[in-house]
Amino acid sequence: RGVEEPDIYFNREILDRMSDKRNDAEWLAAKRVAPETVFLLFHALNPLVCSGADDEVEEVRLCKLRSAAVQELLINSQTVEVFLGVEKQEEDDGQLAWFALSTEDDPTQLLKHKHHNSFFLQGAMPGLLRLSDDDAGVVAQARSVLAWHSRYRFCPTCGSDTKVEEGGYKRTCLRAGCKSLQGVHNTCYPRVDPVVIMLVLHPDGNHCLLGRKKIFPPGMFSCLAGFVEPGETLETAVRREVREESGVQVGPVQYLSCQAWPMPSCLMIGCHCVATTTDIKVDQNEIEEARWFTRQQVMDALVKDKRAVFIMPPRQAIAHYLLKHWIGCNANL
Amino acid sequence: RGVEEPDIYFNREILDRMSDKRNDAEWLAAKRVAPETVFLLFHALNPLVCSGADDEVEEVRLCKLRSAAVQELLINSQTVEVFLGVEKQEEDDGQLAWFALSTEDDPTQLLKHKHHNSFFLQGAMPGLLRLSDDDAGVVAQARSVLAWHSRYRFCPTCGSDTKVEEGGYKRTCLRAGCKSLQGVHNTCYPRVDPVVIMLVLHPDGNHCLLGRKKIFPPGMFSCLAGFVEPGETLETAVRREVREESGVQVGPVQYLSCQAWPMPSCLMIGCHCVATTTDIKVDQNEIEEARWFTRQQVMDALVKDKRAVFIMPPRQAIAHYLLKHWIGCNANL
Ligand SMILES: Nc1ncnc2c1ncn2[C@@H]1O[C@H](COP(=O)(O)O)[C@@H](O)[C@H]1O
Ligand SMILES: Nc1ncnc2c1ncn2[C@@H]1O[C@H](COP(=O)(O)O)[C@@H](O)[C@H]1O
Ligand SMILES: [Mg+2]
Ligand SMILES: [Mg+2]
Ligand SMILES: [Mg+2]
Ligand SMILES: [Mg+2]
Ligand SMILES: [Mg+2]
Ligand SMILES: [Mg+2]
Ligand SMILES: [Zn+2]
Ligand SMILES: [Zn+2]
Repeated sequence: RGVEEPDIYFNREILDRMSDKRNDAEWLAAKRVAPETVFLLFHALNPLVCSGADDEVEEVRLCKLRSAAVQELLINSQTVEVFLGVEKQEEDDGQLAWFALSTEDDPTQLLKHKHHNSFFLQGAMPGLLRLSDDDAGVVAQARSVLAWHSRYRFCPTCGSDTKVEEGGYKRTCLRAGCKSLQGVHNTCYPRVDPVVIMLVLHPDGNHCLLGRKKIFPPGMFSCLAGFVEPGETLETAVRREVREESGVQVGPVQYLSCQAWPMPSCLMIGCHCVATTTDIKVDQNEIEEARWFTRQQVMDALVKDKRAVFIMPPRQAIAHYLLKHWIGCNANL
Repeated sequence: RGVEEPDIYFNREILDRMSDKRNDAEWLAAKRVAPETVFLLFHALNPLVCSGADDEVEEVRLCKLRSAAVQELLINSQTVEVFLGVEKQEEDDGQLAWFALSTEDDPTQLLKHKHHNSFFLQGAMPGLLRLSDDDAGVVAQARSVLAWHSRYRFCPTCGSDTKVEEGGYKRTCLRAGCKSLQGVHNTCYPRVDPVVIMLVLHPDGNHCLLGRKKIFPPGMFSCLAGFVEPGETLETAVRREVREESGVQVGPVQYLSCQAWPMPSCLMIGCHCVATTTDIKVDQNEIEEARWFTRQQVMDALVKDKRAVFIMPPRQAIAHYLLKHWIGCNANL
């Protein structure tokens, strides 16, 4: 990891993806039966977790199953299997492989033993924010790929069924003669949706623009964000989305950091940008309210001071980092 | 446009997308018949161009058809229509709208008049690099969205046919009860594939790493590049792709600039990064050869000096910009 990169939730990588092994059927088969190999289970895109309470707050841990426990699941034709990679920190020669497994029906039905205290972590938000940083990184990868499998089972070019290849990173159309089989097409590969998320700075340098969606918890305000459209740059997308959602015009844009966001498979591209106008006119379809907040108000919210006039996005969201970074930059404390 | 952003090919935006009009059927209908409205024609993702020779070099111009010419095409059920936006520079009140139209069969068959000297620009590379900067920006948007329509006609979740909505920016499944109709799903929206493209700098600061694919013209070397995978950050993707393709390990990554690349719908995210190892071991599947080039060798290639040992990627590619920018930065000339 480069020294400049902050350790943002979902971004930690404890595995080496070893994409060259995705086509190595023999190697994958050996790993599938190796006793130390780790299997993660998902149901309806929720990971199986082994400890922690069902209380919406406490940290939970991924349930790491061994090869012997999942043999029935592995031979089940409904199971989707994704090779995640091997653990980076290896002392000895053996590379410890990780896989993610998912079935439409509750996959724990096919487990060798019942696991007490284990449950599928319900509700992406805030459920998925309760993992350790190491587990969150693995879930970002696994959940994004599994979400693609659950939505892209059929060939979008001809509507036929597809088969899974390349360790879970390719779906190939089963209809001979389909256009998607001639040459390389993105229809066969997992989708990653780039999203810009931006802290808009007031021309006075002492305010920033935050908005709230209706679905936010009461009092929470966060950065504006939106999907990058075809044919756009990141900088153009930032200016367009801010204008659409708040009516504010934006000039220069500065990339800061990004975040994997597996709901279902976004790449959040975090920027600071500078407004050239300040009148707010919100797009009521998307945003309930948008406001300029002072630096002091952001600091109060950050430390949860009793004077705070709004609630920050949680520390696991890149919006939190964009706000914190602004406070840290040339703060006149 | 922010002052920092270079004017890279495909990135210029002469239109305001006005996404709020995509659901305004009445407004769109009025624009469709307005005499000044501009229609661009595509066939097999190739734009109709009106001037310039069929010689693979000379600049060509988009053929801008008026409403009267395309009436038959507009009522044809095979036509895919995409609302591109309105021209930004407007003196009077009337907003000049632009649309892109495409049919499976040659759409010029349905035109009112035959246009002499017009032809569909064949071959994305280098054909699409022959446009003016203004036209290239419009084509980046139009071609990406049309490429999505041509590949994503069927619902990937259930395999049923879909209908086009929101001015060409949404496809909705026609099967009642399909999962894709509950909530918001990316299956309904155009796809944008983020790709990292990076100039790898040698630890000595005086060399950079370039590679060549088998399909490149003889002598050409360019930056390494690769698709961002699910659950990854841009920085992680840069390090993974460089290691996969060249065996070189990379430390810090610096985002510089990006480029829309409508073949079919990529977002090229351009970075500089610094190598921490220098031994090269290429992935023969993707790269034919990779080499460290000196600053002087890049300068020679840039000015097409007779001593040049390799050929630069064309000025329309962001790789060209990444190289030129490196030469411009702290060059010891
Ligand atoms: N890939 C996508 N996934 C989900 N929604 C999308 C996507 N692309 C465009 N949208 C639309 O964008 C809306 C959210 O707006 P925004 O995030 O501001 O761009 C959604 O409600 C969809 O209508
Ligand atoms: N969205 C995508 N579109 C096309 N090819 C993809 C995509 N995602 C992964 N690939 C694979 O990536 C290869 C190109 O390698 P790279 O550009 O280095 O990632 C292609 O030949 C495909 O096998
Ligand atoms: Mg949007
Ligand atoms: Mg928006
Ligand atoms: Mg938004
Ligand atoms: Mg590659
Ligand atoms: Mg790749
Ligand atoms: Mg590549
Ligand atoms: Zn097909
Ligand atoms: Zn469907």
